[in-house]
Amino acid sequence: MSDIILHNYYRSSTSYRVRIALEMKGIHYRYVPHHLRHGEHLEPAYLAVNPQGLVPALIWSDGALITQSLAIIEYLDEISPEPPLLPREAADRAHVRMLAQMIACDIHPVNNLRVLTSLRSVFGASDEDIANWFRHWVNEGFQPLEKILATSPQTGTFCHGETPGLADICLAAQVTNNARFGVDMEPYPIISRINAACMALPAFQKAAPQNQPDAE
Amino acid sequence: MSDIILHNYYRSSTSYRVRIALEMKGIHYRYVPHHLRHGEHLEPAYLAVNPQGLVPALIWSDGALITQSLAIIEYLDEISPEPPLLPREAADRAHVRMLAQMIACDIHPVNNLRVLTSLRSVFGASDEDIANWFRHWVNEGFQPLEKILATSPQTGTFCHGETPGLADICLAAQVTNNARFGVDMEPYPIISRINAACMALPAFQKAAPQNQPDAE
Repeated sequence: MSDIILHNYYRSSTSYRVRIALEMKGIHYRYVPHHLRHGEHLEPAYLAVNPQGLVPALIWSDGALITQSLAIIEYLDEISPEPPLLPREAADRAHVRMLAQMIACDIHPVNNLRVLTSLRSVFGASDEDIANWFRHWVNEGFQPLEKILATSPQTGTFCHGETPGLADICLAAQVTNNARFGVDMEPYPIISRINAACMALPAFQKAAPQNQPDAE
Repeated sequence: MSDIILHNYYRSSTSYRVRIALEMKGIHYRYVPHHLRHGEHLEPAYLAVNPQGLVPALIWSDGALITQSLAIIEYLDEISPEPPLLPREAADRAHVRMLAQMIACDIHPVNNLRVLTSLRSVFGASDEDIANWFRHWVNEGFQPLEKILATSPQTGTFCHGETPGLADICLAAQVTNNARFGVDMEPYPIISRINAACMALPAFQKAAPQNQPDAE
């Protein structure tokens, strides 16, 4: 049994990002599921481990807690550099981080489960309101993302050249998440092409929600 | 006149983060304001520069566009390493990135202007609803942030030891933003103490919203 623990939920998009990175790096870990819809992440035993009560949370072999998917992935990339998830040059690294954060800061946080739940409880949002809200913020983010990918010389098979990295991880996890709300991907041919290239890779498949032990 | 341009809005919390980093690094830049409440960031001339139509956006001296405040700050830290905004050890860097992203991914995105505007237009949210929404997500993020700062051996005068860095930049910008919605800071003595230490520094003062050319 591994002494690295990933607190996790199969359908969490940010958990999926971290699982992909762990698979790409070949790092073995223990999968500890927390059913978000049942509120298992808010139980005292888990709050003692991670005061934020969110997933993913990585417990490293020395006992250190790291939360926040991008912080975890950059940590994995620094301690286990092969294959690299960020390019070598500062300008290229900035480009990849920008693409990743366009998803991780501007799309996902507004659409995650706790925000959608609040829209229901505070504003009485219906299922249709929720689906419209979700699609609105995906489109707000994917339109400029598609444009930047279309015009950037760095764009290749993946977001940056011919190898998958941090931005691709965020992109694929978001596209997977989109399917739950029927986002029309036709306006996004480059994002779709990159997603297909990612999903052809074993790490992305193995880490996918439907292949996790708590998948329903 | 500098050939580095920061597309900017004085009251934007993410713009404030980047201004602090530029001041700390002593990098001169041209300040180009976009009045978010007047929709100036959505004009075609700006969308041609930055398809996302958000601020901040940095145009580097070679013409490269970098958006996303954390991506910009890490870029500045990589090309201009003194004073460092991240610690040297991977585990410490992960800790600082985690703290920064607790604010940048879990608090700010849910509370920024375009989301608050959508709550009004889609769900008919009142001024009071908006203020409650804002305070709710700040408290959801600041409670665990305070706890982690209270128990982490890394916590010093600043989020990590005795020098300010990436997490402090996000913390101070968020605390400044909080004042607009009257967030009660009494439950957060450590965050308040770190914020005070930041605000005593010239870089944080010079970059503050009220000291920008477009301040109202």
